[in-house]
Amino acid sequence: MASLHAGPEPGAARTSAKAKAKPAGSAGVAAGRRSVNATSAESRLGELKRRLQEVHDIASAGAVLGWDQATYMPKGGASARARQGASLSRLAHQRFTDAAVGKLLDGLMVHAKSLPEDSDDACLIRVVRRQYDKAVKVPAEFVSRREEVASASYDAWTRARPANDFAAMRPFLERMLDFSREYARYLGPYDHIADPLIDDLDDGMTVASVRALFDALRAELVPIVRAIAEQPLADDSCLRRRFPEAQQLKFSVGVIRRFGYDFDRGRLDKTHHPFCTRLASGDVRITTRVKENDLGDALFSTLHEAGHALYEQGVAPALDGMPLGGGTSMGVHESQSRLWENLVGRSRGFWEHFYPELRQAFPEQLKGVPLETFYRAINKVERSLIRTDADEVTYNLHVMLRFGLELDLLEGRLKVKDLPEAWRARFKSDLGLEPPDDRDGCLQDVHWYAGGIGGAFQSYTIGNILSAQLYAAAVEAHPEIFQEMSRGEFGTLRAWLGENLYRHGRKFKPDEVVRRATGKAMTIEPYIAYLRGKYGEPYELPPRRA
Amino acid sequence: MASLHAGPEPGAARTSAKAKAKPAGSAGVAAGRRSVNATSAESRLGELKRRLQEVHDIASAGAVLGWDQATYMPKGGASARARQGASLSRLAHQRFTDAAVGKLLDGLMVHAKSLPEDSDDACLIRVVRRQYDKAVKVPAEFVSRREEVASASYDAWTRARPANDFAAMRPFLERMLDFSREYARYLGPYDHIADPLIDDLDDGMTVASVRALFDALRAELVPIVRAIAEQPLADDSCLRRRFPEAQQLKFSVGVIRRFGYDFDRGRLDKTHHPFCTRLASGDVRITTRVKENDLGDALFSTLHEAGHALYEQGVAPALDGMPLGGGTSMGVHESQSRLWENLVGRSRGFWEHFYPELRQAFPEQLKGVPLETFYRAINKVERSLIRTDADEVTYNLHVMLRFGLELDLLEGRLKVKDLPEAWRARFKSDLGLEPPDDRDGCLQDVHWYAGGIGGAFQSYTIGNILSAQLYAAAVEAHPEIFQEMSRGEFGTLRAWLGENLYRHGRKFKPDEVVRRATGKAMTIEPYIAYLRGKYGEPYELPPRRA
Repeated sequence: MASLHAGPEPGAARTSAKAKAKPAGSAGVAAGRRSVNATSAESRLGELKRRLQEVHDIASAGAVLGWDQATYMPKGGASARARQGASLSRLAHQRFTDAAVGKLLDGLMVHAKSLPEDSDDACLIRVVRRQYDKAVKVPAEFVSRREEVASASYDAWTRARPANDFAAMRPFLERMLDFSREYARYLGPYDHIADPLIDDLDDGMTVASVRALFDALRAELVPIVRAIAEQPLADDSCLRRRFPEAQQLKFSVGVIRRFGYDFDRGRLDKTHHPFCTRLASGDVRITTRVKENDLGDALFSTLHEAGHALYEQGVAPALDGMPLGGGTSMGVHESQSRLWENLVGRSRGFWEHFYPELRQAFPEQLKGVPLETFYRAINKVERSLIRTDADEVTYNLHVMLRFGLELDLLEGRLKVKDLPEAWRARFKSDLGLEPPDDRDGCLQDVHWYAGGIGGAFQSYTIGNILSAQLYAAAVEAHPEIFQEMSRGEFGTLRAWLGENLYRHGRKFKPDEVVRRATGKAMTIEPYIAYLRGKYGEPYELPPRRA
Repeated sequence: MASLHAGPEPGAARTSAKAKAKPAGSAGVAAGRRSVNATSAESRLGELKRRLQEVHDIASAGAVLGWDQATYMPKGGASARARQGASLSRLAHQRFTDAAVGKLLDGLMVHAKSLPEDSDDACLIRVVRRQYDKAVKVPAEFVSRREEVASASYDAWTRARPANDFAAMRPFLERMLDFSREYARYLGPYDHIADPLIDDLDDGMTVASVRALFDALRAELVPIVRAIAEQPLADDSCLRRRFPEAQQLKFSVGVIRRFGYDFDRGRLDKTHHPFCTRLASGDVRITTRVKENDLGDALFSTLHEAGHALYEQGVAPALDGMPLGGGTSMGVHESQSRLWENLVGRSRGFWEHFYPELRQAFPEQLKGVPLETFYRAINKVERSLIRTDADEVTYNLHVMLRFGLELDLLEGRLKVKDLPEAWRARFKSDLGLEPPDDRDGCLQDVHWYAGGIGGAFQSYTIGNILSAQLYAAAVEAHPEIFQEMSRGEFGTLRAWLGENLYRHGRKFKPDEVVRRATGKAMTIEPYIAYLRGKYGEPYELPPRRA
């Protein structure tokens, strides 16, 4: 389908196989008139793309500022950086919401209908129309104000979390909550105040649909978690020895190179909170963190972020610099980080190949630790405090807890000042544990403090669900994926994901992407089957309810 | 004089000692009318500052992009980065040249005259007026086009220089030359096509004034260089042993900390070509490069860039985010890098303190090398190929050579294709050497390839001249500077420079800054006295001509 992709030259004439196949009589009247219309549509589209590219450049510059802030910026740069980021956000917003963009879009709606529905240009016009109609509702001044506070809040959080100082974050969090509410109001009307926030990141989802999904999932997970909790814990002491940072990083880098992460078009650095950021099609960076007494932390964080990066690096180059150049939604994005981290990186087949390499990297530390012990250690199920460290089975309970608290905060039923207590109570009831402090309680995730409240956490569970659904479709099409993996090869899996998901970028909505790739709407079945298949082996699980 | 500085709040009311001292009768008529005028001036000034801050934020974001490109950007990011930088340059230019800025300035000219001439606000209005009147002559489209080619050209140069491939750079250089000419034409009329280019970086200088300066200097230097060339070379083999990178960097970092470079407001990284960049008042970064077989390279590059950075870190915080927040000209800037690199960093007093530390860092390599041998090695005078490695005596011949070639290129008397040959011929006649290749010939400096032709090189020699003039004024005011230095302390020198130069930022033109700090216009006398004093000791020099 490569011929359907627009080239990098805005406005360049192109045809697609589908367009050519259309009966000529169905469109236009006289050749002369068609050509005039086509020219005017092409020049409009060229002008639209020129404007979009500028907006994209400003936003990408903002992403560079963000990466720099998280990696190498000296602390004296923080206040100016907040202002710079805010200025760029405001500018990008102003340029995007310029009335001329709306006029160009108006003038292109007819043209879009004449194009094959899945052509790059038709998708671009459709996606930009939707983004524009939302963006014009939000004042540029608001965008800038929120960005500036968010940057300062992020900066404060990097100090407040280690200091276990929720009081320092309370005023920031109150402002972030106000921003989230204000933002939702701009985008209203809505059924639930969180709906616009969810829709931003997981296009097409609402509080109601997420709740239904989470209820169904919770009903499946709770009996599994309960059953495992009654059985002996796996021994993961082999992961808690001293693993020097340099070797940890070297091993992780080796693995993600095998995944296909291209270091000529990216890099790996250390940050407080790991992330992946796209600065350009040829510049998709990831970060990780290292704990020398925890072998899993850097390794699985790196595989996770590399999964995000494979998606971004796999978007068709023709979509670069445009709003289509990037993953389609947070949930689908998270499906890729979780797929490479968990379904691949915590699988037995994967470690059949890589464990000997890992033992070579850490001969002393892993002496006398058989593969099976290691495999059980990295798949230990245990109710624990930290979401990002949580195992695959309990992970979603962490997400549901945050989702519930977010809704309470947004609805006004919970005050920011009462968040630490609410967190503790809910954690106790959902996970049976009491966080000893806020550092490992409600301060642990950066999202609320740097991004706002509402909309971000549901994506993690959607990602888990989709990771299994997409992986199942891939291995159904190519059962040899398993054999390749135990040889340390991932080409078939990556190619399938590239063809069915990555290259499309943001052309299609999440539900359409999932249907195209798997033939079905999103469903929890493959995920439950995966969990039961994997954890039904080391643990005794109760049968599924009918 | 702190009360003369504007606070960080745009438009905030303030008075200065000088303003209070003015006879009240000389301004305004009735109190009521004055207050209305003041309010309207204040609101105009507030609006002007708001706009300037946005432009400054965009430009600072561009600087972050540039730093990232030179330090950590993966190679796949190059083409998008060029485009992003171009978009930001165009935007900054568009916003700055907005007609509203001109109107605000028009409305503020009377107000500026009512302010003390050296107040922050009066200086701001004056400087911005001048920058605006120049900028409106240059189309934004040109700025963006030049920026994009410059970025691609820089990228190509990083590969072409090591490959000794001038042919690869020729088309880039031809375009850069065209841009320089086009730019000069926008700013015309002029006496010489290079005048506007020189004026941009060394406000107030022209081809004629630079030529006069260079002629006078050349007449002094040539007999010195000739005399030294006839005497035996100093032995600098002690610098050519193997010095591991980590210890080199550690030592350099230790020295610049003592200079007063604040790592909480900056950082040091490695790049192909060392530089200093201001991303904010609290974020002034420097870079260096390391050769393990040349102890001087990283060390003196680092001291040089730290000199630039001390200037930037010393600008009054009140000027941050405005066009006044930064060094006043390239020549004055270079005076600070050369002052800290040479007048301090290559002085005997400095090494009386630091040589024992250096020997501790490299005990094997410097075993049996007395201070005097080391001192002579770092001050070895030798006609050599590379400008940045050149000693203090021959350095200016490298600059004059480039300045001459620039003028020939701009005047059209020399074609880009003939540059390598012209370089070789001129090098032979001026320095008595024949460059073996273009890598160490006309490809050696990044300036022409990344910045354009004309305007940049004269600043280095102006910097040398001013470094001696400013240093002489400092030690005249505080002779204890020498004693402090041989204790590894620099507080008095830095404080004098801070008070007399750094804090003013861009408030005053270069010649005014020099007059304020030294009581005189720029003069080569202190520089010649410095060179003769220092090099008259190891070498026999002919007497000065009357």
